[in-house]
Amino acid sequence: MTGFALHPRLAADTVFVADWALSRVLLMNDTRYPWLVLVPQRPHLVELHDLNAADRATLIEEISLASRTLKTITGAAKINVGALGNLVAQLHVHVVARKPGDHAWPKPVWGRGSPNPYAPAAREAFLNELARSLP
Amino acid sequence: MTGFALHPRLAADTVFVADWALSRVLLMNDTRYPWLVLVPQRPHLVELHDLNAADRATLIEEISLASRTLKTITGAAKINVGALGNLVAQLHVHVVARKPGDHAWPKPVWGRGSPNPYAPAAREAFLNELARSLP
Repeated sequence: MTGFALHPRLAADTVFVADWALSRVLLMNDTRYPWLVLVPQRPHLVELHDLNAADRATLIEEISLASRTLKTITGAAKINVGALGNLVAQLHVHVVARKPGDHAWPKPVWGRGSPNPYAPAAREAFLNELARSLP
Repeated sequence: MTGFALHPRLAADTVFVADWALSRVLLMNDTRYPWLVLVPQRPHLVELHDLNAADRATLIEEISLASRTLKTITGAAKINVGALGNLVAQLHVHVVARKPGDHAWPKPVWGRGSPNPYAPAAREAFLNELARSLP
């Protein structure tokens, strides 16, 4: 969409999953947690309140779909949703599947050491599972 | 609303601000960060996707209003929005005003030591400022 460009840090940390009506959907390249990132494809967004109301309504539906799907396919105990942006200002929403015993449980996943990247075969397998479950 | 009851941990950690169309709005009793918590007043909610679509649309508008207002009155650099629930399962959304140099910056606020409660006069002053700026 006109003027949208993915922040290079988000591009470097993730793998492309899909483009939805509003959001680019990315998989965080970190096997410690099943972790999607939704990036609304509009220019110059920082805060949720920078979106217009119609886009906000779309975004919450996209977050909900990502949340429900991730919970179903991973059997997670809890989904963590967060829009922080202290380090990367471009508006992006984390949707993370959490389980007791995971690397950070029960603390948040952000700022907890280095990611553990997927091996190519495991990444492909998870992307295929997502593709079967998501639009 | 029928069947809604605020989790005792959320009640203990916060001060009442207002009841909006969907959410009970609370102020976290922690001077380290200007920090609102929105709790949708529906029974048995855990995940965002447990809300129906109409309530989700209301919730994102209430989050956006809290975010915009908190940014304006505090001059925050960034608003952090999060729905985690690893410790308190009842669905609740944090809206936190962040600035470089605050207690946790640039890390998330959750799980970062003990809160620093407001003195009564400072709490009243901030509640009054919120009351002037929020519906």
